[in-house]
Amino acid sequence: MIKQAISEYANKAETALYKLMPETDIPQKTVCEAMKYSIEAGGKRLRPVIMLMCAKILDLSEKDVMPFACALEMIHTYSLIHDDLPAMDNDDLRRGKPTNHKVFGEAMAILAGDSLLNFAAEIVSGASYTVPADRVLNALSELYKASGIYGMIGGQVLDIESEGKDVSIDELRRIHLLKTGALIRAAGRIPCVLSGLDKDKTDAVTAFCDNLGVAFQICDDLLDVYGDSKELGKNTGSDIANNKSTYVSIFGREESLVLMNKHTEMAIESISVFGDKANELTELARYLTNRKN
Amino acid sequence: MIKQAISEYANKAETALYKLMPETDIPQKTVCEAMKYSIEAGGKRLRPVIMLMCAKILDLSEKDVMPFACALEMIHTYSLIHDDLPAMDNDDLRRGKPTNHKVFGEAMAILAGDSLLNFAAEIVSGASYTVPADRVLNALSELYKASGIYGMIGGQVLDIESEGKDVSIDELRRIHLLKTGALIRAAGRIPCVLSGLDKDKTDAVTAFCDNLGVAFQICDDLLDVYGDSKELGKNTGSDIANNKSTYVSIFGREESLVLMNKHTEMAIESISVFGDKANELTELARYLTNRKN
Repeated sequence: MIKQAISEYANKAETALYKLMPETDIPQKTVCEAMKYSIEAGGKRLRPVIMLMCAKILDLSEKDVMPFACALEMIHTYSLIHDDLPAMDNDDLRRGKPTNHKVFGEAMAILAGDSLLNFAAEIVSGASYTVPADRVLNALSELYKASGIYGMIGGQVLDIESEGKDVSIDELRRIHLLKTGALIRAAGRIPCVLSGLDKDKTDAVTAFCDNLGVAFQICDDLLDVYGDSKELGKNTGSDIANNKSTYVSIFGREESLVLMNKHTEMAIESISVFGDKANELTELARYLTNRKN
Repeated sequence: MIKQAISEYANKAETALYKLMPETDIPQKTVCEAMKYSIEAGGKRLRPVIMLMCAKILDLSEKDVMPFACALEMIHTYSLIHDDLPAMDNDDLRRGKPTNHKVFGEAMAILAGDSLLNFAAEIVSGASYTVPADRVLNALSELYKASGIYGMIGGQVLDIESEGKDVSIDELRRIHLLKTGALIRAAGRIPCVLSGLDKDKTDAVTAFCDNLGVAFQICDDLLDVYGDSKELGKNTGSDIANNKSTYVSIFGREESLVLMNKHTEMAIESISVFGDKANELTELARYLTNRKN
């Protein structure tokens, strides 16, 4: 049931995303092909799904929120392209496919990443909206604070600098809160900003996203150790092989499960203020921590 | 006289830029230090200078235009950091200093570039303006079209793909028009958008910038062959050594000089519609093509 709703939101976002991607009939087409390659490589489209669900609760039109949903996915995708580069994680495969630089070369992968970050700003600033322009500007500010040095990029920096070091649970939390948490938080907060929601309810959505982000991360860490590589579509055990600190390496399996469920319930509790309207988000939170991939 | 005016505008932009740069007392401080290193490495600040001069003609307040002037310089700087990477031009020195990746390593240089492109969007979307928000959004759209695949990044792609090939004058023009011309054009057009200028006068400013950009590029090409390396502060002859097509390699010295002066006069003619108000821009155009560095 919720699985179908998630897949409908994901498809809707994907359709909009594919439609927005640049034509490849211009002289500088190589970079467009490289952008498309990674955008079309799939993924859960989790951030757009969260954003569209939040928009629905707030009676915000999809027309107003979709440019931001697409921008968020572009920013997420660019960060993966740059993360995979030889100078960063040096990964050859992502989602079972060769990484961007393996197909297009390093120079073009750097530029494809830059292009996606830039294109996100082109899309959101160039779209037409029914909400007032000052709200759009505030939502843009929310988006780029989340993806920059105080958000996602800051998390990437901390992650790189923590390699090969003992990481405390506080440091681990901070890395996740920034590296993956910031965009998930933005997915919830941007619809709040666009619809002019009051502070208390915005705080409720923020708390939902933050707790969901932690539960999602713990689930990821558990799957990397105890998941089925066939169902996951990727090799398990990479965190142990890379000597990475994770929730599982710090807390063990049982305590990680308890913590994951605690954060899921805290997420759900946060949005009880929305009553029945929050049902989809509640089910999403439960679904994401029961997933097998 | 004009030299002093240029230096005053450049200093004003630089002061604002330095003030905007992030504090380095956060855990992810390394990336902030890497961003600052390249921002504070100097340069002509040509794009902010053009923007501030155009704003003055249009009676636009510096408060409204300064976030964009700083964003433009951040975007220009990020493109240099990524251009210098081993996978791109593999340069060790810029403006007499070690390039970003030579000091901070490749991973951090990639992230510092990403951070500057992202920070530009944080700054412009987070600033407060006296002009209406819809104009700010349109100016944002102008900025990111100029820096993306249809502008600067597109030019970088064409430049990379033209390496080692015979380049026609039309292809050379297209590369320059995008790679360096797009941001120079945006420097002029953004104040037009912010002040709600009519189409004819906006076209005049656009023509000024486009011609100035070509003249500036020809001057660069001439200096690389006939300039004084001491006055330039860098080695000459790099275009010949890298077997790069330039205006000089295609047209020779005399014809390049004629072409440069022609574009300078065309630039000046374009803005005659502004009368005496255009004096500073006129002098800027003459100054830039008589420069020795």
